[in-house]
Amino acid sequence: MHEKTAELIIDDSERESDLLWASGFLAGDQFTWLRDSKGSAIMLTDLELGRGEKESRVDEVISLSAVEKSAKEVKGGEPCSFEEIVLQLLRSRNIERVEVPSRFPLMIADFLRSGGIEVVARENPFFSDRRIKRADEIRCLEESQAATEEAMALAIRLISNSEPGQDGVLQLDGEPLTSELIKYSVRSFLLSKGLQIGEFIIAPGDQGCDPHDVGSGPIRAGETVICDIYPQHMTHRFWGDMTRTVVKGQATEDQKKIHAAVLEAQETAISLIKPGACGQEIHRRVQQVFEGAGFSTQQRDGTWEGFFHGTGHGLGLDIHEPPRISPVGPQLEEGMVVTVEPGLYYPGIGGCRIEDVVLVTANGCRNFNKAPKGLEV
Amino acid sequence: MHEKTAELIIDDSERESDLLWASGFLAGDQFTWLRDSKGSAIMLTDLELGRGEKESRVDEVISLSAVEKSAKEVKGGEPCSFEEIVLQLLRSRNIERVEVPSRFPLMIADFLRSGGIEVVARENPFFSDRRIKRADEIRCLEESQAATEEAMALAIRLISNSEPGQDGVLQLDGEPLTSELIKYSVRSFLLSKGLQIGEFIIAPGDQGCDPHDVGSGPIRAGETVICDIYPQHMTHRFWGDMTRTVVKGQATEDQKKIHAAVLEAQETAISLIKPGACGQEIHRRVQQVFEGAGFSTQQRDGTWEGFFHGTGHGLGLDIHEPPRISPVGPQLEEGMVVTVEPGLYYPGIGGCRIEDVVLVTANGCRNFNKAPKGLEV
Repeated sequence: MHEKTAELIIDDSERESDLLWASGFLAGDQFTWLRDSKGSAIMLTDLELGRGEKESRVDEVISLSAVEKSAKEVKGGEPCSFEEIVLQLLRSRNIERVEVPSRFPLMIADFLRSGGIEVVARENPFFSDRRIKRADEIRCLEESQAATEEAMALAIRLISNSEPGQDGVLQLDGEPLTSELIKYSVRSFLLSKGLQIGEFIIAPGDQGCDPHDVGSGPIRAGETVICDIYPQHMTHRFWGDMTRTVVKGQATEDQKKIHAAVLEAQETAISLIKPGACGQEIHRRVQQVFEGAGFSTQQRDGTWEGFFHGTGHGLGLDIHEPPRISPVGPQLEEGMVVTVEPGLYYPGIGGCRIEDVVLVTANGCRNFNKAPKGLEV
Repeated sequence: MHEKTAELIIDDSERESDLLWASGFLAGDQFTWLRDSKGSAIMLTDLELGRGEKESRVDEVISLSAVEKSAKEVKGGEPCSFEEIVLQLLRSRNIERVEVPSRFPLMIADFLRSGGIEVVARENPFFSDRRIKRADEIRCLEESQAATEEAMALAIRLISNSEPGQDGVLQLDGEPLTSELIKYSVRSFLLSKGLQIGEFIIAPGDQGCDPHDVGSGPIRAGETVICDIYPQHMTHRFWGDMTRTVVKGQATEDQKKIHAAVLEAQETAISLIKPGACGQEIHRRVQQVFEGAGFSTQQRDGTWEGFFHGTGHGLGLDIHEPPRISPVGPQLEEGMVVTVEPGLYYPGIGGCRIEDVVLVTANGCRNFNKAPKGLEV
């Protein structure tokens, strides 16, 4: 890095995973990270200094109040804004140009520019190194995915242990089985494993045809139920992500056909994953499987049906991160961790998606998932 | 608003509560909200359109793909970036100037500016109306705080039901009582009430003297335990926030003295809260209570002791929002909801903080909390 240039991030690391990745310091309050020719540093308030010294993995932990003191001196004792303190920090290190994430806060950028600093927003991803997972990161992802797989087994067990009542609604221990009840059980289980999960998808019947409908209400025998579970580990912050689709009891022929096509597409995609394979090409092959099986993709009355989302995405400290396996998917490299999750959605039949997480290895890929993919339970 | 000016937010509404507040639409993916002379609108991808129509509370839900189509036409059929689509949206509404939140993404701002749009970052808070809670928002806050109070009772019950072993470590059902065990119980309970909580504070002994130390390890009889619980409701997204400090068994004279001073300071602050009262002044009165009781605030070997944080903060869709009750605290107004949480911290004695949430009413304030504030349990 040029002597007068720095990389700069100002955010809180609970919401900005680039900052967490770079600093190793998890905080819900905004703080400053930079890296210049002198090394990497974070600037923290007095309240955070002690924890920062213990937990962060940067070369230097800088006291914000010490920098504030110098900034005040420059102003003849006048109080300073946070932006002025950041400007003082940059000046004290002779920095004239900073590269910042694309979503760097505009107001701070404008202030630094008015103070003579050149501020350049860098295209995503800010750290391209993040796409290649280190061994310790892979262990974290495996841990999160293993817990997710256990949670999935629990969700499917609730469905398979239920029995339909006269109206077709599944009953478990004398209560109707609902999307909400399954979600509560899954959340409780994940908590016991140290993971938390916000909204996620238990979507019966045609609810599953809208991939952003998280699902609600009673589950019925004979309808597809898309279970898509994506929790985050509370300590190391790596995500799990997994989808299965099941039908309690007898599936219809149409349901079996879309499930078989999705399974074939998913297995095809996984078989193609290796260093050098192109995400765009893998996505195209998935589309070809669906077209070959007679499943077309189109808009009907303003609603998409068929296969109309990406095949997969990188997984790490963000639930969705590069690389994509989609029309914009790049070449894969060893050490990337991606989801593989084709799906088909036809109102009247239901939705079906199957998703595993795989690690790109030297010769192919290693699937973190072992769970069965059968439709009827 | 001037005809050619708009307010513009581009973010995801899980992380940006201004966007959630303005749109009523909760989404983990980035979307666009604007308000101009024609009214308020959100622009969504096809995947989100249906849910947006159902759940948002804006005048118009705009299809991103429709705007993308026009943007492509302008470019002679070339593919468009997201920024180009936003620019097309603004141009289609004859907007020449946008006011955006202080942390609006820099890269989008730079692109819009290069396209001739004036982009102005507005000082926080972006929506000053958010400080005054509507009746439905107050109900949500009461619901979150009631669940928090129940969770607190559970945490304190675990401590009070324990008995010290020979080494002074509390034992519950034959197991050592730890910060982690209490947190797990609290999280599980809150989940059953529809709230989630990330890291929070169960901090025994001197751990409690660092207000940002979340606490860990075994709890001992005779030491202060700061319990600070702040969960977020998973559906309506309003936060609870509450702190109690307890000692299992016999407290020392010093512990009793800091507890009595904190209680007096907290009750004094609450008694002062009413429309027109100034946050800065209330904070100063809290400091006076502590000084009057002989508890000074200073740095010793680089560590602060005494009272060195704000007295309170606004609570709503953000855990910390305006107004502050602190050296920068403004006048309070009817309908504001604030925490009141003075504390004292002396290594060797322990930490003590007591926190309630109150609503500023026409004549004073109403405390959402009813829980006892005693020290020994």
